[in-house]
Amino acid sequence: MAFWNLDTLHLEQFRPGILSKAEIGKDLIMVCMKIEPGRADSGHEHEFDQCGIVLEGPIEMHVGSEARLLESNDCYFIPAGERHGWKTFDSAVRLLDISRKPSETSNN
Amino acid sequence: MAFWNLDTLHLEQFRPGILSKAEIGKDLIMVCMKIEPGRADSGHEHEFDQCGIVLEGPIEMHVGSEARLLESNDCYFIPAGERHGWKTFDSAVRLLDISRKPSETSNN
Repeated sequence: MAFWNLDTLHLEQFRPGILSKAEIGKDLIMVCMKIEPGRADSGHEHEFDQCGIVLEGPIEMHVGSEARLLESNDCYFIPAGERHGWKTFDSAVRLLDISRKPSETSNN
Repeated sequence: MAFWNLDTLHLEQFRPGILSKAEIGKDLIMVCMKIEPGRADSGHEHEFDQCGIVLEGPIEMHVGSEARLLESNDCYFIPAGERHGWKTFDSAVRLLDISRKPSETSNN
């Protein structure tokens, strides 16, 4: 499926507090994600780049030593290996998030 | 630079008819692109996935045998190896486009 209309895209439970829909290719994973209010990821890291755009904010994100309150249309780029996390507030947040698909032959 | 505000992001000439700003990581290239009205790419292909979201349309895109008129907030996913192209109409188009960074050790 080459195209998504975000208004009609059906999201499914991904993990507690997060609904998502993913398109998985050879190299990339594109995910539309809806995160409930009042959720947080205090931080983690991985050996692949990740980036995206906020469709509906606000969401606080930290990447390395930078932290920012992101609103709709703000973009982020998380370099491989950088510790990062996020926090939502009183409203649900939607993101379009893209990461490199980890290789099946490595732990990266 | 981890974050982009699209309202203030400075784009530079990339090739005739296209302004862009790129963030290049280890694995991914994230590009904000502005394409002039009346431009087209009749089609090409490459051995890496590419995807993105239309920030300002309309743009006609074709991916393999599917063609679609995309408006703002529509997303696309171009699987590695699929022939794809696009056409703009009477207004400039803005995209956020992400592709896998081709490996330095291969032609993919």
